[in-house]
Formats: sequence, C-alpha cells, structure tokens
Amino acid sequence: MPQVAVVTFDGFNELDSFIASALINRCRKDGLEAFITTPTPQVTSMNGVEVAGQRPMEFVTEADVVLIGSGIKTREAVADERLLSRLPLDPSRQLIGSQCSGALVLARLGLLNGVACTDQKSRPFVEACDITVLDLPFHSEGNIATAGGCLSSQYLATWVITRTLGEDAAHDVLDYVAPVGENQQTVERALNVVRMGEVSLR
Amino acid sequence: MPQVAVVTFDGFNELDSFIASALINRCRKDGLEAFITTPTPQVTSMNGVEVAGQRPMEFVTEADVVLIGSGIKTREAVADERLLSRLPLDPSRQLIGSQCSGALVLARLGLLNGVACTDQKSRPFVEACDITVLDLPFHSEGNIATAGGCLSSQYLATWVITRTLGEDAAHDVLDYVAPVGENQQTVERALNVVRMGEVSLR
Repeated sequence: MPQVAVVTFDGFNELDSFIASALINRCRKDGLEAFITTPTPQVTSMNGVEVAGQRPMEFVTEADVVLIGSGIKTREAVADERLLSRLPLDPSRQLIGSQCSGALVLARLGLLNGVACTDQKSRPFVEACDITVLDLPFHSEGNIATAGGCLSSQYLATWVITRTLGEDAAHDVLDYVAPVGENQQTVERALNVVRMGEVSLR
Repeated sequence: MPQVAVVTFDGFNELDSFIASALINRCRKDGLEAFITTPTPQVTSMNGVEVAGQRPMEFVTEADVVLIGSGIKTREAVADERLLSRLPLDPSRQLIGSQCSGALVLARLGLLNGVACTDQKSRPFVEACDITVLDLPFHSEGNIATAGGCLSSQYLATWVITRTLGEDAAHDVLDYVAPVGENQQTVERALNVVRMGEVSLR
C-alpha cells in the first residue's frame, strides 16, 4: 500500500499540489494513495483558498513517496532551517519528486545530482544552488524526479504511478482524466515524457 | 472587474475546480478573479481534502461568470430542489460553463440548447435529460459552455479568459502554466479547442 505525501506549503500553487494528488488518488482502489501534507493544520493557497492538511509534516518519514509542491513562499520555506529539518527524506527507500520551485527544497536537502527541471521563475534560484536547469518538463534519476511548468505535475504523477503500480496503471489514469477525444495523445505524451526524462542509474 | 464563481459541491473533483480557478486567477492583475463558491462553509473533495469556500452560494447572482464544477455527488445535488434554487443563473448577462458532471446542473436548469460536453461516466445521465453528448472536449454556444474530461478544465478557463480579457490574455496564461518546453503546443491546442468548440450565435 504505497502512500504518497504531497508536501504543500502556505502560499501553494493549487495546480501543483492538486493535479498530482488527484491523479495519484485515482489509484486508491489499487492501494496507492496521496495525502496533502502540510507544516501547519491549515494552509492557504496563493489564491487565498484555505485547505486543511490531510497529514502532518511528520508523515513524510513514513511515506513511500514524497512530492514537494510549489508556491509563492518556497524561498521562505528553504530559508527556514527548522522547516527543512522536518523533511528527513531518504532516497534509498523513498521516491522523491519536486514540482517547479519544489526543486529548491530538493537542492537545499542535497538530493539533486547537479541537474533539475523547474519553472522559469524559479530557475535563477535553482541555478544559484549550482544546479543545471534543463529545458525539459520532466527529469528523473534513480529515485529522484523534478518537473517544471505547472501542468507538468501530470508527469510527476505519471512517474509515481508508473514506478509504484506500473505503466498500465498510469495509462488508465491518464486515459480517464484526458479531455474527451484527446485520450490517446494525452496518454502517449505523458508516458513518453516520463520515459524520455528518465536517466537510468539502476 | 469580472468575477468568476467556481461552484464547488461536496465530493468535488479537485482537477475540475482548481485547474479552472488557478488558471483564471493568473489574471488577477488584470482584474479577472475566480473564487471557490460553495453551498456550505466547508466542502470535502472526493479524495477527502477539506476546503473552505471563498464565497457563499449567493455569490452566483453577482458573479459575471459562473462555472459549475464536477464531483461524485452531482447527481445528489441536481436532485436537491433547494440547492438548485440557489443557482438563479442568467445567460443574458452571465457567462456560464460546466465541467464534466456539471453539465447535469445546466441541463436541470434548462440552460443547454440540446447539446453538451461531459465525461464518459456522466454521459448516460446527461443523455437521460434529452441532451446529445458530443465526442468533444469543449463546446460553447453563445454564453454557455460545457467541457468534458477532467483536464479539459483548462479549456473552460481558456474560454472564460478569452471572452472576458481576450485571446492574448489566455495565450499568456497558457504559456505560463505549460510544461517547460511544451509552451507552443499547449497554447495552440487550448486556443484551437476553444475556437473549434464555439458555435457562434452572436
């Protein structure tokens, strides 16, 4: 029963946390489940939407997968040593991914192997951490993945589903959420992006 | 200052309400703003995420645009006459759209001109209202639009932005939220779907 923590800070971008969690949660019947995981009981999105966390930050230690969402306050989050200390991630036994500015968190935790995907706004800050930013929507290396551009959160979810349940499960989810009539192109695009973005170290 | 009510019922699908609202809210600097609008102060998503409504249901009467989200309890919602009576929509002065099962609400309110887009699961229930369901992600006729398939909520948002601020504004939002490196295809796909889905009655 793989459990996924979608780490969601105050000021979060709804696209980043909710596209990933909603796609993954289509696999709840297969035992894969995602939870909005927050440092405080409530967080407020960048657009003023107040959301109750489903799991406290401590959940990241027991989760099998940890995704770091993005938002307008990620730079404050990575400057907060106490907050970072609440993210003792272990890539030897966890899948770890980031969306947009979430790459800054992985950089600060020393989890990136020199390259990452992120969004254009976060790019200079990620580069300031001595990370090369790729002009790609998605990149993974071993158990670490990064995605850039809000809507590439669908690729992060595709990676999680593929790595935990297999590509057929990811296919079914993408087929379900695709715009009507765009099923095949939606499925193929996402599976291809994730395949192409994978650097196999295994 | 066009205001958008994203009507969000209990059991809502996060993709449907949040993709539309987050895309539209990228235009807040231009005066276009979306609010999660709920029948009760709190609603819980189909995946157990508790969200505080930003506006009460009464907001739909003053909003310039009303989008009806989707979820696992829409059939209960449309069976509830009191809830439906809280949606006195006026297509002569409002843009009105629905996502997936939200088409059932528009059907019950008599706002559909015989055709709609919706998702595969909702299709038989929409057809039972004497509505022809199109094999398309998006359709609009005058001030009414319907979208089908979770991720086509980006098309509903594109329609709202195009109709209120113009196509250039929609272009900029799509370019911003696109997966890195997929900017042009993301922008063109959405603008084309909305153009093609439009039946001009004006």
